[in-house]
Amino acid sequence: MQLFFPLPRDSQVRIMENTVANAEKYFGQFCTLMASYARKTAKLRDKSDLLVKQLIDYANTENPELRSTMKNFAEELAKVQDYRQAEVERLETKVVEPLKRYGIQLKQTQAEIKRFNKVRNNEIKQLEKLERLRQKSPSDRHTLAESNVHKASVDASRTTQQLEETIDEFQKQKLKDVQKIFSDFVTIEMVFHAKALEVYSSAFQNLDDYDFERDMEVRGLETHRSIRTLVQSDATSTLPPAPRSPSTAHYSHACFIHKEMRF
Amino acid sequence: MQLFFPLPRDSQVRIMENTVANAEKYFGQFCTLMASYARKTAKLRDKSDLLVKQLIDYANTENPELRSTMKNFAEELAKVQDYRQAEVERLETKVVEPLKRYGIQLKQTQAEIKRFNKVRNNEIKQLEKLERLRQKSPSDRHTLAESNVHKASVDASRTTQQLEETIDEFQKQKLKDVQKIFSDFVTIEMVFHAKALEVYSSAFQNLDDYDFERDMEVRGLETHRSIRTLVQSDATSTLPPAPRSPSTAHYSHACFIHKEMRF
Repeated sequence: MQLFFPLPRDSQVRIMENTVANAEKYFGQFCTLMASYARKTAKLRDKSDLLVKQLIDYANTENPELRSTMKNFAEELAKVQDYRQAEVERLETKVVEPLKRYGIQLKQTQAEIKRFNKVRNNEIKQLEKLERLRQKSPSDRHTLAESNVHKASVDASRTTQQLEETIDEFQKQKLKDVQKIFSDFVTIEMVFHAKALEVYSSAFQNLDDYDFERDMEVRGLETHRSIRTLVQSDATSTLPPAPRSPSTAHYSHACFIHKEMRF
Repeated sequence: MQLFFPLPRDSQVRIMENTVANAEKYFGQFCTLMASYARKTAKLRDKSDLLVKQLIDYANTENPELRSTMKNFAEELAKVQDYRQAEVERLETKVVEPLKRYGIQLKQTQAEIKRFNKVRNNEIKQLEKLERLRQKSPSDRHTLAESNVHKASVDASRTTQQLEETIDEFQKQKLKDVQKIFSDFVTIEMVFHAKALEVYSSAFQNLDDYDFERDMEVRGLETHRSIRTLVQSDATSTLPPAPRSPSTAHYSHACFIHKEMRF
């Protein structure tokens, strides 16, 4: 029987352990970063939602032309956020979750390597035992010890087979997962960008169509009237002011002097 | 001479004051939100930059096929971040800055209204003075007081003219600014989404072309060899392991067992 030790354990099994540890390190970081990317995207969506809300509020204080333009714009911006929300959800289910699952698989592979090491250590132990017995009484037969070495060797052989399969499966799965997860990431981003581009094209057209001259005509007349009234007022000016057209009626109830300098 | 008071001051000038205050309120909010939107976008860029860095680090620990695929992917992702950086810069210069400048203009318009109010108040004061004098001695002429009223009236008339122009200019500028700023926002977003879509399309192709079977052949051979060496080692196994092909050489120096569970 061929003796196996000293074995190049540290140099060979360590390769496999390191392969798995390396995957754990990088895929763990990818998982953390992708989850963070999804969260930052969600924050961008939240800010945009606030912008949508403010645009609608503002639209309601404006003349019909601008009101309609701003409301349309707010709606388009809201649509982009719906797509962004879909992006966030898909990033979570198709990128972050698979990376998490992959982390669990890595743990299982690590357990498999540990089990292999245990079986191999037992084989080494039995071999060492047999070697000691042979050195003590070289002429004797050591049936039990030889039988234990044989058993340990069969175990090690079977476990080696299993480890080979596990490592093969692990490598294959890893390469497939890398391709799948990052392809999914790219697909999710592509879908979002394509949709956003589509919506913004329509929003641009809508803003471009806005004719501010039409709002100026309404506003201009009202501004002149209000200042002229002030200068050329007569006895009737003691009466409460006539109700204004709906386009500016909001000023009497919806607005307030905004003290804080926000700019 | 026609007497002007009591005047509908509170109802008419207040309209103008409120128009400006309303603009200040909403454009101040738009400015804050747009600045925040740009900042959140910058944070998304930062996260992506980290991802790019990790992808390159990871690529350097992999076999040639995957290494090349991951490096290409990292480069495409980095390109998207360059476009995102351009997006952030353009949002700041073409959206946030104009909104800030608009805030300054609003302050100037408010100062103009204040000045108008002051001149109008002087006119009212002079009229009240003349009225009091006339009530005291109705038969006298009140040349000085009349001259003061005349001067105040001329001032008020000129200021009214100026205020009309200011308000007109303010309204026109506001409507133009609304259209310009939000159109610029949409254009900046469109350019970014179009560029990102273009880059990701290429990244997708690159990932799709990756042939993991080729890496598996290399890996498979090495895994089997390493485990077989362990089991079938002979006397030569006491020698240090032979240098490995460059494809896995990294395991001996670049990797470490990663203890922390990051998943």
